[in-house]
Amino acid sequence: MSSQQNHKLCMIPGPVEFHEDVLTSMSTKATSHVSPSFIPVFGESIELLRKVFVTEQGQPIVVSGSGTLGWDMVASNLIEPGEDALVLNSGYFGDSFAACLKVYGAKVTEVKSEIGDRPTLQEISDALSTKSFKLITITHVDTSTGVLSDVKAISELVKKQSPNTLIIVDGVCSVGSEEIRVDEWNLDVVLTASQKALGVPPGLSILIVSERAIQTFKDRKSPIPSYYASWAHWLPIMNAYESRKGMYFATPPVQLIYALNTSLKQITSTPLETRFEQHKKVSDQIKSVVESLGLQFVPKSREVAANGMTAVYYPEGIQPADLLQKVASHNVVIAGGLHRAIATKYFRIGHMGISVTEPERKHIDNTITALTTSLKELGYSGN
Amino acid sequence: MSSQQNHKLCMIPGPVEFHEDVLTSMSTKATSHVSPSFIPVFGESIELLRKVFVTEQGQPIVVSGSGTLGWDMVASNLIEPGEDALVLNSGYFGDSFAACLKVYGAKVTEVKSEIGDRPTLQEISDALSTKSFKLITITHVDTSTGVLSDVKAISELVKKQSPNTLIIVDGVCSVGSEEIRVDEWNLDVVLTASQKALGVPPGLSILIVSERAIQTFKDRKSPIPSYYASWAHWLPIMNAYESRKGMYFATPPVQLIYALNTSLKQITSTPLETRFEQHKKVSDQIKSVVESLGLQFVPKSREVAANGMTAVYYPEGIQPADLLQKVASHNVVIAGGLHRAIATKYFRIGHMGISVTEPERKHIDNTITALTTSLKELGYSGN
Repeated sequence: MSSQQNHKLCMIPGPVEFHEDVLTSMSTKATSHVSPSFIPVFGESIELLRKVFVTEQGQPIVVSGSGTLGWDMVASNLIEPGEDALVLNSGYFGDSFAACLKVYGAKVTEVKSEIGDRPTLQEISDALSTKSFKLITITHVDTSTGVLSDVKAISELVKKQSPNTLIIVDGVCSVGSEEIRVDEWNLDVVLTASQKALGVPPGLSILIVSERAIQTFKDRKSPIPSYYASWAHWLPIMNAYESRKGMYFATPPVQLIYALNTSLKQITSTPLETRFEQHKKVSDQIKSVVESLGLQFVPKSREVAANGMTAVYYPEGIQPADLLQKVASHNVVIAGGLHRAIATKYFRIGHMGISVTEPERKHIDNTITALTTSLKELGYSGN
Repeated sequence: MSSQQNHKLCMIPGPVEFHEDVLTSMSTKATSHVSPSFIPVFGESIELLRKVFVTEQGQPIVVSGSGTLGWDMVASNLIEPGEDALVLNSGYFGDSFAACLKVYGAKVTEVKSEIGDRPTLQEISDALSTKSFKLITITHVDTSTGVLSDVKAISELVKKQSPNTLIIVDGVCSVGSEEIRVDEWNLDVVLTASQKALGVPPGLSILIVSERAIQTFKDRKSPIPSYYASWAHWLPIMNAYESRKGMYFATPPVQLIYALNTSLKQITSTPLETRFEQHKKVSDQIKSVVESLGLQFVPKSREVAANGMTAVYYPEGIQPADLLQKVASHNVVIAGGLHRAIATKYFRIGHMGISVTEPERKHIDNTITALTTSLKELGYSGN
């Protein structure tokens, strides 16, 4: 296949580059979803996810689907019609999470920031004081803007001011690259997807659900308005596989779960602290280069910028397609903009997973070289 | 990986054995979902699906998810609360489709047969005469019983007696192994999954939707009660990729779509008629062996039995686990029962995809040998 022979480094904010062993797992031969060879692989993956999310009691849920499905899981299982939800909006994905919650009957209040910024603790506190919210959603890293939220500080605020409010984190672009501690930070749901810092091809929707969230789900009075997303179907499946028993609701994506298992073993073989430090260090390196080139970040400050991606405005005079194509001609793929209001004005670089934790691959060096060379070739002379 | 070295033939009714080229596609390196290398692969896959479903105007929809998600797609996009749905029930999957429709507010009438049988045309006609049904669902092959429905005859009946009723086919265990002609048979939705006769690992929910079904969806008065399953999000994505443009709603499962593309090219390289004939011939071969062993089928007659799988009662004195394990010791995996009422009383053999179309692999011969030898070793002496 030509895409294999002329592979260009995939340095977008997901999918990210995959380890060779992960790709080998993807081509596992046909295996029954209830076979003695697969059951322990799924069971162990559930256990390893607890380690990655730093939780003892949180319940992992792994389902065939895109990250987006995680929003439906949260909304359909935890919201009852007419309940209030507070959405912290730091970009495109805040808009979409809000839209999803509304589909399931939530009355949504949004705390929305300027592009490149995030809601302040004061704004969040003000919003919390207006109503009794069933849940609050935080986009840990908004992939459209590269803005990082301070989940820990927000959680502390919510615990103090509105202890009954469930704390939901969209960690699609953060789990595996940003520090996140489910138990210590009292998070009720963290949802993510396979293709970002977890280093697995796209196709898995992954959640961690707290005991409190499961109790809330069990206590609900109205029926669950989804079939596929209903935890009533998935919780027994997860419990069965973790107890090393097969059980059927829908055929699990066997090959993707083999790949998840391989990646989770790699991830948990190093202390998570080291992993987070590595992502910070590489992020600093890339952001320093961007600064030295005189380019402007989408996030308004380093403090609110993610460690697994970097969003940057094109310099004046450089056309979006030109830069992306020029960088691709140097065998590196970076992404264009996604936030509707500024989509054609900025680009995004992903730096997660093995590209960060295995510097001997030189993915970061090659990306920096491709970017700086391309800008030069396009006549951009810097600040 | 040990599962690769000691591979046992996967002869269950899905997942089925995968072609080496399909598995190679599964390990495609990281590729952006909007890259110039991936967009045409997704676009072409959409076109090829039309060929497999024998439709000119039907709209393929390919989404990250299990086959089960197809039910949510049908129910959430086509049913409005309080509308009537007629479910033809020939096993476990009829029960589940009915349950899914109810979640989305359908008033469900079921025509249910004895285990091993299917509703008669007279029973269906009687049911159709009681109400004006928004849609009728047919499980083409119920994977739990191996019962085959006569989709063409049912469709003709519905067209004559209740022309406004949408005709929905659950083709999870039939597309690619049983004859199905979307346009000629006037079908409105056929839903399937990747891991059966389409020969791709599990993780794709695949549907074909008629123009009439899309119009019904567009004309609906109540909001769509799902976010992830809403066609409002997916139709523009499918149109974009088919026009060879990238567009984002949720990250598509890139590797699975490469694998789908590879398998669809293989499937469409031979006339579909040949493919259906091959599946019939192999099915006859296996069913003759089962008969000659004096075993009893779950389907009550050959006429109502699927061509891609065979469901058989254990002979007296043979324990379920013993037979499955014995067959596995001969390197062939077959499946136990799934229908709740008789789950411990029967086993199932899948015979779909390359195991059927490439006889030089000897999958069928090896399966027959493993079964007959195992029965003999367990002391079963036949009729």
